[in-house]
Amino acid sequence: MKLLENSATPSALRVAIFLKELGVEVERQQVDTKGAENRTKTFLQKAPNGLIPVLELDDGTCICESLAICRYFDAITPNDKALFGDTPLEQARVEMWQRIVELQGLVPAFQAFRNLTGFFSDRENCIKSWGEESQKRVNAFLPVVDQQLSTHSWVAGEHFSIADITLWVLCRFLPRLELQVDDSLPNLQKWLSQMAKRPSVAGQQDR
Amino acid sequence: MKLLENSATPSALRVAIFLKELGVEVERQQVDTKGAENRTKTFLQKAPNGLIPVLELDDGTCICESLAICRYFDAITPNDKALFGDTPLEQARVEMWQRIVELQGLVPAFQAFRNLTGFFSDRENCIKSWGEESQKRVNAFLPVVDQQLSTHSWVAGEHFSIADITLWVLCRFLPRLELQVDDSLPNLQKWLSQMAKRPSVAGQQDR
Repeated sequence: MKLLENSATPSALRVAIFLKELGVEVERQQVDTKGAENRTKTFLQKAPNGLIPVLELDDGTCICESLAICRYFDAITPNDKALFGDTPLEQARVEMWQRIVELQGLVPAFQAFRNLTGFFSDRENCIKSWGEESQKRVNAFLPVVDQQLSTHSWVAGEHFSIADITLWVLCRFLPRLELQVDDSLPNLQKWLSQMAKRPSVAGQQDR
Repeated sequence: MKLLENSATPSALRVAIFLKELGVEVERQQVDTKGAENRTKTFLQKAPNGLIPVLELDDGTCICESLAICRYFDAITPNDKALFGDTPLEQARVEMWQRIVELQGLVPAFQAFRNLTGFFSDRENCIKSWGEESQKRVNAFLPVVDQQLSTHSWVAGEHFSIADITLWVLCRFLPRLELQVDDSLPNLQKWLSQMAKRPSVAGQQDR
């Protein structure tokens, strides 16, 4: 199998940290997203969402969407990490926080970046005022996770999970929106320092 | 346990169909979202995302986010429905299509509705031009699922799954964006007629 990705992107970082946590190595093939290689007919036959990363299995079967790829590796790799949670309640909590961080953090962050910078203006209509609004919403969301981390070690509770990986990717992306985790977010700052110590994350610091 | 919801909303419909598929009955309590009951301090202590639905367990533990609630019920209810998929590959395919339909269909649809109509203008800044852009993106997304349904019985493959429920909720929401599944989408039309026959869906037609 091989992973089609663009290693400079947040989505690639998300999958890379997850795979490091599981101790999985996989062959990579870079896709030129800025050059719109992901919009070619060949690519769209592999990934109907037109997005990287895509996991291509040896029989040609393709799985796109970062979280689907993570779930697949989690299911086929014997491990006791429980990155998607353990008990039914823990699984629900992980799904809940993974979704909250993604839908209220990462999705607006990407929309802010794309609409403010016009990074993909060759292929999409950019609305600057929506970029500004999205940037404000990301900034307003950060105290929600800071609050959660005031009473929990990790985003979804007492265990490290995929929700922490998603939050890390969001935090790493903030400078591109001219946002930062400042002193008004002490619990998020503390969590960031814990995250940076994890071997899965420490090896990706230059990304 | 009880489900805090607003039965008129797409999210409530999504969970309701899922529970019907599992054959689960649960006590409901209505939340006045138009009156911003979901933005009160009491509600936010239950659901940090400020959104319905929320599942409140008997010990006071709360789970928000529709998909987290669905996963929880799936895990605690003995069943052979495999609504989140069966094998690792099937689970990945379901996650992949559930996310594609949600991120490229439902999220833009909600953004279109909110920004075009100003439905929640009492609590959020609405950008009409983003509403128009989102509406176009939803319309451009429908052929992607029509294509998938040209070679598969259900969205994620040969088995009914949560991805179909998400797509049904999206299709039911289209008229509110002045969009429809017209004759240019014959596979989606055929799938809609198959969906309407399912007992879990047929009982919700008036919603």
